[in-house]
Amino acid sequence: MNAEIITIGDELLIGQTIDTNSVYLAKKFEEIGIRISRKTAISDEKSDIIEMLQSASQRVDLIVITGGLGPTKDDITKKTLVEYFQCGWRIDQNVIDHLTKIFQSRGREFLEINKVQAELPACCETLHNEVGTAPGMLFNENGKIIISLPGVPNEVEYLIENQAIPRLIEKFNLAKIEHRTLITLMVPESMLSKQLEPFEATLPENLKLAYLPSFNCVKLRLSASGNIVSSVFLDEWFLKLQAATHPHVFCTSDISPVSYISSLLLENNISISTAESCTGGFIANQFVQAPGISKILSGSIISYSNEVKELELNVPHEILKEFGAVSEETATAMVNGVCAKFKSQLGIATTGIAGPSGGTESKPVGTIFIAIKYLDQILVRKFRLFGNRIQFMERANNCAMAMVKEIIGNI
Amino acid sequence: MNAEIITIGDELLIGQTIDTNSVYLAKKFEEIGIRISRKTAISDEKSDIIEMLQSASQRVDLIVITGGLGPTKDDITKKTLVEYFQCGWRIDQNVIDHLTKIFQSRGREFLEINKVQAELPACCETLHNEVGTAPGMLFNENGKIIISLPGVPNEVEYLIENQAIPRLIEKFNLAKIEHRTLITLMVPESMLSKQLEPFEATLPENLKLAYLPSFNCVKLRLSASGNIVSSVFLDEWFLKLQAATHPHVFCTSDISPVSYISSLLLENNISISTAESCTGGFIANQFVQAPGISKILSGSIISYSNEVKELELNVPHEILKEFGAVSEETATAMVNGVCAKFKSQLGIATTGIAGPSGGTESKPVGTIFIAIKYLDQILVRKFRLFGNRIQFMERANNCAMAMVKEIIGNI
Repeated sequence: MNAEIITIGDELLIGQTIDTNSVYLAKKFEEIGIRISRKTAISDEKSDIIEMLQSASQRVDLIVITGGLGPTKDDITKKTLVEYFQCGWRIDQNVIDHLTKIFQSRGREFLEINKVQAELPACCETLHNEVGTAPGMLFNENGKIIISLPGVPNEVEYLIENQAIPRLIEKFNLAKIEHRTLITLMVPESMLSKQLEPFEATLPENLKLAYLPSFNCVKLRLSASGNIVSSVFLDEWFLKLQAATHPHVFCTSDISPVSYISSLLLENNISISTAESCTGGFIANQFVQAPGISKILSGSIISYSNEVKELELNVPHEILKEFGAVSEETATAMVNGVCAKFKSQLGIATTGIAGPSGGTESKPVGTIFIAIKYLDQILVRKFRLFGNRIQFMERANNCAMAMVKEIIGNI
Repeated sequence: MNAEIITIGDELLIGQTIDTNSVYLAKKFEEIGIRISRKTAISDEKSDIIEMLQSASQRVDLIVITGGLGPTKDDITKKTLVEYFQCGWRIDQNVIDHLTKIFQSRGREFLEINKVQAELPACCETLHNEVGTAPGMLFNENGKIIISLPGVPNEVEYLIENQAIPRLIEKFNLAKIEHRTLITLMVPESMLSKQLEPFEATLPENLKLAYLPSFNCVKLRLSASGNIVSSVFLDEWFLKLQAATHPHVFCTSDISPVSYISSLLLENNISISTAESCTGGFIANQFVQAPGISKILSGSIISYSNEVKELELNVPHEILKEFGAVSEETATAMVNGVCAKFKSQLGIATTGIAGPSGGTESKPVGTIFIAIKYLDQILVRKFRLFGNRIQFMERANNCAMAMVKEIIGNI
């Protein structure tokens, strides 16, 4: 079954907000066999919204609208829905009760303007929003479902998971769309594609292989759609894909490289710390985004200046003087220092030039040394990474994850 | 002038990739007076692409397509464009020369598959891509411009800035769309809206006020469109908006709170360090994303465990024992410790419970103490922040920025 997402709001069009809701929606819907066939961002103009509703409802059976449900004057989705369905208004007492409760618990005054959120199109079913003030709405128009949600990400998540999905499962008879994803690091897309030519030539027509490159990482996604393909058949071909991708397979699940390494370390109770110069805590923070990481990560250090490298990580002054801060020798001393400081079994150290300035002829912007220590082994590599500061950090992080995998082996 | 963006690729629809290109495009186009009126993500199906090109070219004079230009088999944009324009193929020798040069400099073999990238629709103008292997393409169809770009963000940026924009400025007679943005922190949208009611009632019709909420931050954007509104007129009303928003104005430019604080600290040469427990380096890393920050940030520490808090930050054992790690007392000791350790004038310390587990009745998930030290002053606050781990960190970061602004005052 196909669905379309319509996001409403100038902020998505003029570039002030990145649309993460659609990513969440797509993932959740995929789990119950709903495929997003189109996603459209429009401004909060009534005529655009109505036109989109009309055209989308000719293409699909489910439309999800996000955005434009706040209490302020620039939010017009609800008015437009009343006009589109020509249904008038109703007041939802449950919403008023919920709002009163929320405002009390937060110690805030319940303003007249907030009551507007209990005014709903007469023909919609209310989707109770436990985590926010704007309720979701579900419309059933001759068997086609239109769901309208606020734009705030955690409210979208609550409403989809707890309100929308149970109703959609009940209403539609859904066929699951399956994917299998593997991840490679440090291999260019064109090299992978060349290596996979024989595999692709034998791939059955009801399977599809996609290359998803990002930051020295290429995801390979094998997809099947419809009822024709069994999980077993997809699994078989996924094994063939893994064999064909050998020796470049980093992991065989659709998670980020750092999530994969986090789980591996957590499962094996390997303690970790980072000493980051040019990546400034980026790698540690990626680890920290995994719940439960405090079991294996007790601390980390951002050592930007030479002084901090000396004082906090015991990098010898002579090494900094002779080889410079951006060197194999400094990276090695840093990783030794951080493992000793935090008594960790695994250490990651980075030192380099993120740019835009600071490069030299022998060490241009993008140069980075990454050192990984695991027990008594140390691995140090030099990379030249492209892109702006944030891209540099993303790439460095993926390089480090590839090196961690290499050094800890297949535990 | 209006434009539409069409992004191509299943990865954007099934939620594997977040679309950051559109955000960049919208910002850049805004500067030259092009407004994105619609943004559509479709899958890499030929019929969908052709249908979108047909319908979009009826609505706007400029269409930008991103994605689907890699050398691999799942990329079908180029073939579809040849079919849409019914123009056949040509080989671009400049692209071959550029590819040969790139592969040589990276020490990689130039594969036959890479030559495919020099095969272009016969009727397009080549947009030279200095930073990647897939060239951009520009088509002129009876005065309507269609630009096709690869999906890789830094390539999109290069092509737009260096190739597309100069051509668009020449081709179209553009009227600038202006915005003025101010940022508030820690004030709920509905409270702001209530406070701004009198202001909104007097707002002229050719101006528009939008509320853009995210993570304890609300951006207020005043926009004008068309030629009718002068910059002076917009500036006058922006001053009125600032007065009406008083005392909640955090800053009056459209940058992130942490970028604003970074510039303020850099301009005034105020050194900074962070000691982060629950935010795990998130705040330091936000600072590090600003170029030049090494002038004022020498180091920072992620002190997850109590042991690290004691050993690295000199938090007294008795304080941890009596008040717990998540307490005003510990936050205060942490901020004192980090300022002493890194000899910084300004310090930021966080300790809290990011969740999803670890909460108690008196300190539920989302509880955080933030301490800011500037010279001899210390400010400590307790917050209860909502959302998942990453939202928790985003909110904590904004709380910290509001507190930094408060403590350093209007220097």
